[in-house]
Amino acid sequence: MAVKIGLLGLGTVGTGTAQILLDPTGRNPLLEEITISKVGVRSPDKPRQVELSEGVITTDLESIVNDPEIAIVVELLGGLEPARSLILQAIANKKHVVTANKAVIARYGDEIYEAANEAGVYVLLEAAVGGGIPIIKPLKQSLGANRIVSIIGIINGTTNYILTKMTSDGADFGEVLAEAQQLGYAEADPTADVDGLDAADKIAILASLGFAGRVKREDIYCEGIREISATDITYAEQLGFVIKLLAIAQGTEGENSQQLELRVHPTLVPKNHPLASINGVYNAVLVEGKPLGQVMFFGPGAGAGPTASAVVSDIMNIVAILKSSGTNNNLDPLLSCVHQHFCQITPIEAINTRFYARFLTKDLPGVIGYLGTTFGDHQVSLESVVQIGFQGELAEIVVVTHYVREGNFNTALDEIRNLEAIDSIPSIVRVL
Amino acid sequence: MAVKIGLLGLGTVGTGTAQILLDPTGRNPLLEEITISKVGVRSPDKPRQVELSEGVITTDLESIVNDPEIAIVVELLGGLEPARSLILQAIANKKHVVTANKAVIARYGDEIYEAANEAGVYVLLEAAVGGGIPIIKPLKQSLGANRIVSIIGIINGTTNYILTKMTSDGADFGEVLAEAQQLGYAEADPTADVDGLDAADKIAILASLGFAGRVKREDIYCEGIREISATDITYAEQLGFVIKLLAIAQGTEGENSQQLELRVHPTLVPKNHPLASINGVYNAVLVEGKPLGQVMFFGPGAGAGPTASAVVSDIMNIVAILKSSGTNNNLDPLLSCVHQHFCQITPIEAINTRFYARFLTKDLPGVIGYLGTTFGDHQVSLESVVQIGFQGELAEIVVVTHYVREGNFNTALDEIRNLEAIDSIPSIVRVL
Ligand SMILES: NC(=O)c1ccc[n+]([C@@H]2O[C@H](COP(=O)([O-])OP(=O)(O)OC[C@H]3O[C@@H](n4cnc5c(N)ncnc54)[C@H](OP(=O)(O)O)[C@@H]3O)[C@@H](O)[C@H]2O)c1
Ligand SMILES: NC(=O)c1ccc[n+]([C@@H]2O[C@H](COP(=O)([O-])OP(=O)(O)OC[C@H]3O[C@@H](n4cnc5c(N)ncnc54)[C@H](OP(=O)(O)O)[C@@H]3O)[C@@H](O)[C@H]2O)c1
Repeated sequence: MAVKIGLLGLGTVGTGTAQILLDPTGRNPLLEEITISKVGVRSPDKPRQVELSEGVITTDLESIVNDPEIAIVVELLGGLEPARSLILQAIANKKHVVTANKAVIARYGDEIYEAANEAGVYVLLEAAVGGGIPIIKPLKQSLGANRIVSIIGIINGTTNYILTKMTSDGADFGEVLAEAQQLGYAEADPTADVDGLDAADKIAILASLGFAGRVKREDIYCEGIREISATDITYAEQLGFVIKLLAIAQGTEGENSQQLELRVHPTLVPKNHPLASINGVYNAVLVEGKPLGQVMFFGPGAGAGPTASAVVSDIMNIVAILKSSGTNNNLDPLLSCVHQHFCQITPIEAINTRFYARFLTKDLPGVIGYLGTTFGDHQVSLESVVQIGFQGELAEIVVVTHYVREGNFNTALDEIRNLEAIDSIPSIVRVL
Repeated sequence: MAVKIGLLGLGTVGTGTAQILLDPTGRNPLLEEITISKVGVRSPDKPRQVELSEGVITTDLESIVNDPEIAIVVELLGGLEPARSLILQAIANKKHVVTANKAVIARYGDEIYEAANEAGVYVLLEAAVGGGIPIIKPLKQSLGANRIVSIIGIINGTTNYILTKMTSDGADFGEVLAEAQQLGYAEADPTADVDGLDAADKIAILASLGFAGRVKREDIYCEGIREISATDITYAEQLGFVIKLLAIAQGTEGENSQQLELRVHPTLVPKNHPLASINGVYNAVLVEGKPLGQVMFFGPGAGAGPTASAVVSDIMNIVAILKSSGTNNNLDPLLSCVHQHFCQITPIEAINTRFYARFLTKDLPGVIGYLGTTFGDHQVSLESVVQIGFQGELAEIVVVTHYVREGNFNTALDEIRNLEAIDSIPSIVRVL
């Protein structure tokens, strides 16, 4: 018997999902056992790129999550509400849920998974991170034998496109953003992407799976790419780096317990690092585990087709379970989320990282000595100090540090900022 | 209640597997529910790197696959026999099987999966391809919504190490092979690796999953790397390529049906292609699907830790199913193998590919014209003809073709070989 599903949303991803489900030939035969019985939208009269039977499209989203015939609700609305409430209502009605909504899961994952576990239903979200790249299921199912050391991702296509374009064209942020908006790679309001919020939602989800604990979204340190200039990209290049917006989750030994560093920020990545060559709208996630070592997952991080591929794989997974083990069973512990405790997040001042900093200075010879001394006074050891260019009367000095405690680095900077000979510090970027 | 497993083999991978299972802290909690109850080896008195209780190690492998207490048999012996018979015996006893043995699965997959389906047990083999890289499960579970276009892999670490080293050092095959043998990256008898047989076993498995049909191992065209010279690597470099041993499975439209190209051979890969930068013992698999586009999986393709990570993930998968849905159920269609038909494999003469060929010639001006004409006569169109160097009196000419039918190219070559002015054709390599 066919499994009936209800789609909430028929936009970019919803349409891609319906297209796969309505054209199963040459794909996994399981797809032939799935029927789209209702689709919820806002504007019922909008022309659609898929042909659905009369009466399938509705604006009454509640009627979908309450429909006793529907076994799986697929949430592709986006945004926090009504997405959250509808997901919870579907769960309350013992429906399995598939979603691509990282924003809802990153913020309300606790509430949603608690409800799902109680109701004995799955909430799958492969499409929420990395678009078409299989990363959620591998983290849950294939890498669990490991102690995860770190998860580092380029998981926002818009910012990666902008940084790649800035690098190849030597262009500035504003210019490239405008172009990306025209091409549809960036939204009219680009905040969620360029300020790193979307990447933070996604790393919250990956960290929670990889480190088996809940994550408070607001604990994630988050810095976007607005401040990155063409100048910094050029200097980074000369030093052997490319600049990428990385989302990083990294286990560290805290004083009393396992801690987690969790942060999103532009980062200088050495050119020979596997993430350095991930360009354009592509995404990649590098996972390091013991005893595995490093594995990387690479592919299209967004777009109708790739994202729908992930959504449909989740639907198929649930259908396969319904077909094989029926409904009167426990949840598969590898596919459900059962963490109770919260991960301890290291405050940003306490992390250890390397830094790149660019200074505009007046009195060159004096300044180099002063920089060295002041950093040294605060346990910041320098890897290189290079007078790299001029801006008018001012000399540009670029400093790259060894690993330092971020708090120490900032204290040193505060002191340096006060020096007469320092005109300004236009950029500070962490180094991988 | 703990799930009891039996290991067949306690060599490189067996030891790595036992190490993870005996030290579950910080890994998935499911590992705590697994007990190693027997381990079969050949030499019971060999010192081992894991501490097992007395009586666990045995040389009586039959006693493991017949033990009614054991739910999962983990085959890590290698070789065809007794591995095949023991796997079949375990299945007959309704035990689930986990194996890392590509050789057995590529040759006896049909027999094994038929028996497994009848017995209602799983045979999982994540470790058989790509070591620690999750690729089998993603192909089965995450990419099934797609029509697979191609699967292209660097899936033999030994040959990739040798080619990488030849490229970086300008060294010849024999030299680097000897060094790889000393370092333990190549076996004393390197045939299975350097002649492409191991890669062929693995692509047989990937193709069968991706294209949902059985594959006859002997249908796979297979060419190793013994003939690749430092000269060709240098010339390839100048033309913008690196040389990699690729395993390729690619769907094509045949006259009457979907056909599959299935082949292993050294290949010129454009430097900007994602597979071009996979170096050393690393493996990578690039999968293209519709509507997904390209995704790539990258990581350590062998070694105790990575391979054991994959073995244990399979064990955990089965344990999770046993815990959640019990034993009286059907097999999950996404985790089992149910293909009945055989894939139609295109004969190598009929494939379309590009070629690189190097000629040693006497009469230079005459030869270039003759090459052009003869290739043209056989519908082989050339992308470039370059006189690239000299070897003594002889001029070296390198030809790169556009896409041609392999049979046409060979007919043209046969004619060219007969020309007086052609001294020899030292190398012919396909181009991606
Ligand atoms: N686009 C991507 O490449 C991508 C990639 C990964 C994940 N995602 C995630 O996938 C989800 C969907 O994204 P999308 O790009 O497909 O969005 P979209 O194109 O804006 O589509 C949203 C759909 O939801 C409907 N909708 C929204 N709010 C509604 C409401 N209050 N009541 C009824 N219908 C409502 C819209 O109806 P109308 O059609 O009537 O306007 C539309 O069909 C989001 O969570 C997003 O983060 C997207
Ligand atoms: N090594 C890798 O990196 C790697 C990567 C991917 C897949 N694999 C696959 O994993 C499998 C195991 O490889 P491995 O490298 O671990 O092999 P290995 O180090 O040679 O170990 C083989 C083990 O099996 C035992 N054994 C072999 N034949 C036996 C027989 N007839 N009776 C009893 N015991 C027997 C050996 O016993 P003793 O210890 O007493 O000699 C040894 O413990 C192979 O299928 C291989 O292709 C290996």
